[in-house]
Amino acid sequence: MKVYKIAQIPGDGIGRDVTAAAWAVLTKAASAGGFRFEGREFPWSCKFYKETGAMMPDDGIETLRGFDAILLGAVGWPAEVPDSVSLHGLLLPIRKAFVQYANIRPHRLLPGVQSPLKAEGFDILCIRENTEGEYSGAGGRVHQGTADEVAIETSIFTRTGVERILRFAFERARTRRGKLASVTKSNAQKHTMVFWDEVTQRLAAEYPDIEVTSYHIDAMAARMVMAPESLDVVVASNLFGDILTDLGAAIQGGLGFAASANINPDRTAPSMFEPVHGSAPDIAHLGIANPIAAIWSGAMMLDHLGETEAAAAVMAAIERTTAAGIGTVPGKDKTDTITEAVLAALA
Amino acid sequence: MKVYKIAQIPGDGIGRDVTAAAWAVLTKAASAGGFRFEGREFPWSCKFYKETGAMMPDDGIETLRGFDAILLGAVGWPAEVPDSVSLHGLLLPIRKAFVQYANIRPHRLLPGVQSPLKAEGFDILCIRENTEGEYSGAGGRVHQGTADEVAIETSIFTRTGVERILRFAFERARTRRGKLASVTKSNAQKHTMVFWDEVTQRLAAEYPDIEVTSYHIDAMAARMVMAPESLDVVVASNLFGDILTDLGAAIQGGLGFAASANINPDRTAPSMFEPVHGSAPDIAHLGIANPIAAIWSGAMMLDHLGETEAAAAVMAAIERTTAAGIGTVPGKDKTDTITEAVLAALA
Ligand SMILES: CC(C)[C@H](C(=O)O)[C@@H](O)C(=O)O
Ligand SMILES: CC(C)[C@H](C(=O)O)[C@@H](O)C(=O)O
Repeated sequence: MKVYKIAQIPGDGIGRDVTAAAWAVLTKAASAGGFRFEGREFPWSCKFYKETGAMMPDDGIETLRGFDAILLGAVGWPAEVPDSVSLHGLLLPIRKAFVQYANIRPHRLLPGVQSPLKAEGFDILCIRENTEGEYSGAGGRVHQGTADEVAIETSIFTRTGVERILRFAFERARTRRGKLASVTKSNAQKHTMVFWDEVTQRLAAEYPDIEVTSYHIDAMAARMVMAPESLDVVVASNLFGDILTDLGAAIQGGLGFAASANINPDRTAPSMFEPVHGSAPDIAHLGIANPIAAIWSGAMMLDHLGETEAAAAVMAAIERTTAAGIGTVPGKDKTDTITEAVLAALA
Repeated sequence: MKVYKIAQIPGDGIGRDVTAAAWAVLTKAASAGGFRFEGREFPWSCKFYKETGAMMPDDGIETLRGFDAILLGAVGWPAEVPDSVSLHGLLLPIRKAFVQYANIRPHRLLPGVQSPLKAEGFDILCIRENTEGEYSGAGGRVHQGTADEVAIETSIFTRTGVERILRFAFERARTRRGKLASVTKSNAQKHTMVFWDEVTQRLAAEYPDIEVTSYHIDAMAARMVMAPESLDVVVASNLFGDILTDLGAAIQGGLGFAASANINPDRTAPSMFEPVHGSAPDIAHLGIANPIAAIWSGAMMLDHLGETEAAAAVMAAIERTTAAGIGTVPGKDKTDTITEAVLAALA
């Protein structure tokens, strides 16, 4: 029997609840599919930071390297640990160290879920660069605290980084409706964004079967709201992808439905699966976090591991659950109720 | 009789049509209000660039300095002149040279206009930093065209720049519902955005009457779609403001309704008024551009000049026009039809 070693990092707040839910669904899907998960839980979180002074141990990355995949809940507890410490100590280093350069986020409306938009028939796959760009961390401040203070922040885009994410997106577009939207702001940022547009143009010649269009980020944000059905695959930089995928989450009914996969397409290190939402301190411990985004992320993990039938079974179970009106309204159903409904639908 | 000297820069594409429309409405509002506009039109545009090799003459900025305000249509004709040339040769230099540091963009639904959202009751004022930040232009590329190519782009935030835009936003919030949302991405960009958050915190102490909340740009994009009625004044950096105001345009029914003012609050140089939309090459010369965004921008100019009654009269005329179903559906009514309806409603 095939065994997958999974590192579980529930993290903070509702991350704990939704990871437990996803785990329950995943293990059931595994036994139905004739394979097994061997899980190991890591307590790395803001609580761990307060106890040890670090978000994860020094050898954290090396420890994770031995796993087939990572299931993450949410990281952050701003009231006690600044985000600049928690995220830069756990979430962002994993994405970078394991070259999880493709952050994939599907945006479509599950049956029974209400969109804030009048439009309903959209199916967008956002692909976000996940290792460089506007999140490079380069920069600093001078004359701090004085009237002359200046802060700078430098975005760094490499040929390797831009080419591989675009190539990944072109390939994905091939498996879907063959349309790719590349998002920049080359009319205002003339170095990095013009560079990205150039690489897009060069690659387009290699993919004559893909209809590729370049959009500015402002126009794309508007398009996702005004004509979401016109979009298929959307590829963007780290920051632009971050913004567009929260917008995608909004149009698909909220963060409770927004799944994501941080993929290392070359499989030189584990990939990581996490809901888009954060730790939600305001509703932590209330038992009302929606686990659907985490479960959907789990389905993306199954897909990545090659267990496509199990992945499809989990997605079908999610859809049966929301179609029955369970988990569709934020805060209405308990985490447990929704999880049990998905488990039952999986049977 | 009071006379205002106005520089008109219709620019490219539909910029020409909508500026003419706004001008007709403004001159009528002036004669009803007992003041006069003295207009001078400048042909600076992509066409001008192709004839002269520059978007405006060397002394363009100095020429404009003598005016009381600038009315701009739209700049850009990417098929013939790259945006990086046209915008950096005309629009962006004016914003910077005249220290128009506050770009103000109102987002609310005009009567009769359909939003793509189910929500309708929102009234948001976006205030965008307009002179520095992510649009600083600093950066470059090395190893161009090779596998080792690297492109960088540096955002520059100064204490002066951040403080003045935030102060402006706090003041505006005072004249409205007293709520201010400040937008950053300080969990991922730890230099510039943490700096912005710090300045916000310091200023908040000076404005105890204003309820100020910090949001990350991704969360704010989602909020504008999921709960736009929860927002009053939104203040953001150059790039984030650009993105949020196109999103704002989308939720208010489209770019045909999105007005903007590039304000120099210290009045040391002219301010500039322009619709958010671009030159729209696809519909240029069809005579179907919606002039409402440009006319609304003209109303913002009247306001800035202190002609508040005339401004209110123009806004009322716009609202009577859209309430009658004229100009509410993109492409349905001719530019002229809409303009004449606004002129008639002004009577
Ligand atoms: C928490 C934050 C740093 C993170 C990001 O921006 O990458 C989150 O918003 C996300 O989208 O995964
Ligand atoms: C044309 C472009 C440079 C401009 C900007 O981003 O500032 C436009 O999108 C705007 O919002 O005024």
